[in-house]
Amino acid sequence: METNWSIRLDTEAQTLGDRAATRLRELIHSGVFAPGQQLPAEPELARRLGVSRPTLRAAVAELIADLLLVRRRGVGTFVATTPHPADGLERLVGTGRGIALLGRRPGTTGLRVRHVVADRSLAGDLRIDPGDPVVHISRTRTADGVPVVHCAEWIPADLLPDPTALDGFGTRDSLYDVLADLGLPVRQAVARFVPVLPDPDLRDRLDVAPDVPVLLLEQRHFPATRADRIVLFSRNWYDTRRIDLQAIRRG
Amino acid sequence: METNWSIRLDTEAQTLGDRAATRLRELIHSGVFAPGQQLPAEPELARRLGVSRPTLRAAVAELIADLLLVRRRGVGTFVATTPHPADGLERLVGTGRGIALLGRRPGTTGLRVRHVVADRSLAGDLRIDPGDPVVHISRTRTADGVPVVHCAEWIPADLLPDPTALDGFGTRDSLYDVLADLGLPVRQAVARFVPVLPDPDLRDRLDVAPDVPVLLLEQRHFPATRADRIVLFSRNWYDTRRIDLQAIRRG
Repeated sequence: METNWSIRLDTEAQTLGDRAATRLRELIHSGVFAPGQQLPAEPELARRLGVSRPTLRAAVAELIADLLLVRRRGVGTFVATTPHPADGLERLVGTGRGIALLGRRPGTTGLRVRHVVADRSLAGDLRIDPGDPVVHISRTRTADGVPVVHCAEWIPADLLPDPTALDGFGTRDSLYDVLADLGLPVRQAVARFVPVLPDPDLRDRLDVAPDVPVLLLEQRHFPATRADRIVLFSRNWYDTRRIDLQAIRRG
Repeated sequence: METNWSIRLDTEAQTLGDRAATRLRELIHSGVFAPGQQLPAEPELARRLGVSRPTLRAAVAELIADLLLVRRRGVGTFVATTPHPADGLERLVGTGRGIALLGRRPGTTGLRVRHVVADRSLAGDLRIDPGDPVVHISRTRTADGVPVVHCAEWIPADLLPDPTALDGFGTRDSLYDVLADLGLPVRQAVARFVPVLPDPDLRDRLDVAPDVPVLLLEQRHFPATRADRIVLFSRNWYDTRRIDLQAIRRG
C-alpha cells in the first residue's frame, strides 16, 4: 500500500514550501527515508506529498542546503549518509513537543494557573502597562518521568476571550495550541540564554544541588498575525545534565 | 547621489536570495531603511541591489515572515515599526564579527597556536582517529576592552595545505575566513549549550568569581562543500553578564 506523506496543516504561519520541507525532515528523521536512500522521482514525490513540483523543488533545495539531502548530478537526490542532528533550539516548538522530538516521553508536574497583575519588570517584558492583568502558568516538565525543565509563563489577560479562559488548562495542553486557537499562532520567539545557580525553590523542583548551574531561557513570543504584541513571556530553567540543548546555526 | 546597496559576495555558501535578504536586513538594522519607512518600488530596489525581481521578491517574503517588513495591500512594503532584535545565535557568524554586530569593539588577548594530537575525546568531536594531528588555537575575545568569551578551537591538520599554515594566525584573523580561503567555507554548526562554573584558568581569563556560572557553547562546524567532514570544533565560554546571548527561534 502506498503511504500518504501529505502535509498536516498545523500552523497558519508556515508557507506550503515550509511545510513541505518540514514534512521531508520528518520523513528523514523518522527513517522512512533512510540514510543513503534515493528519493522518489520528483513527479511522484510531489504527488505523494500533495504539493506542486516548484514547491517540492524549493523544499528539496532547503534540505540540500541543510546537508540532509545530497544531489548527484544526472542520478538523483539522496538522503545524506552522514548522521546529522535533527533541528534544535533555533526551531520554535513547545517544550513538551521538544521533549518528544528527542525521543523521550514528556510529562508535567506541579501545574498551577494564577491571576496576577504586572509589576514594572513583567510589564516591560510583555510590553503592557504596570497593573495590567496577566495569567501566570507554572509547571515542571519531565522526560521519561525525570524533571528536566521548570517553566514559568505569562500571558496578557486582554488577549484572552475572558479572564478565566485558561483556568481549565490541563497537564497535557500546549500554550502554543491555545494561542493558535485564539487566532494568535506564535511565529517566533526571541530567546535570551543565562546560566544561573538554582534558588531553593528551583533546586526542589528540578532536584538539583545548589552548586549545579542550570540554563535559563527567557523568551518573548511574537504572533504571526500581530507584530506589535508579545503574546507570551516565559522563563524556562533547564537541567542540561538531563536534557541536551542544541541549536543548528546556519551561515 | 544614489547609494549602491549591492551585495558583497562574502561566502560561497549563500544563495543570491539569501544574500539579498541579508543585505536588506543590514539596511534595516543600520537604519538606512528606518522603522515605518516605505521600501522603494520593486524594479528600483531590484536594480539598486543588483538582483532580479524574483530574487528580490523571495528576500522580501523572508523578511515579511520574520516580521521585519510589513506589506500593505495596494500600498507597498514598509519597514516594521516595532523594534525588533537583529539576528542572534541561530545565524552563524565568527565570534569577533558577532561582537561587532552588537555594536561593540572586538579585541583578542592571549592568542596561542599549538600543534597537538587528538586524544580519544577530541577525535570523537572532530570525527578523526586518535593520534591524528590537530592545530589548536586558544584566545580570549574582548568587547570594548572587557573579556567576554574565551575560545578554544581545534582544526584537523590534514585539512591544511601544510602543518604550519596557521602559525602566523593573527589576533584580528577569523578562522572562518581561513577555512573559506582553503575551499572549506563553513555552512553550519551544531551548538550545544552547557552552563558551567569556571575552573581557575577560566576565572583568570574572564575575570569572574568562582560562583559565577558561565555558558559553554560546544560547536561542531560543517563545511558547505564536504558534508562528511567536521572542519572545526570549538568550545566558547561566555560571561553572559557582559555579553547578551540571544537567538531568534522560528516556528
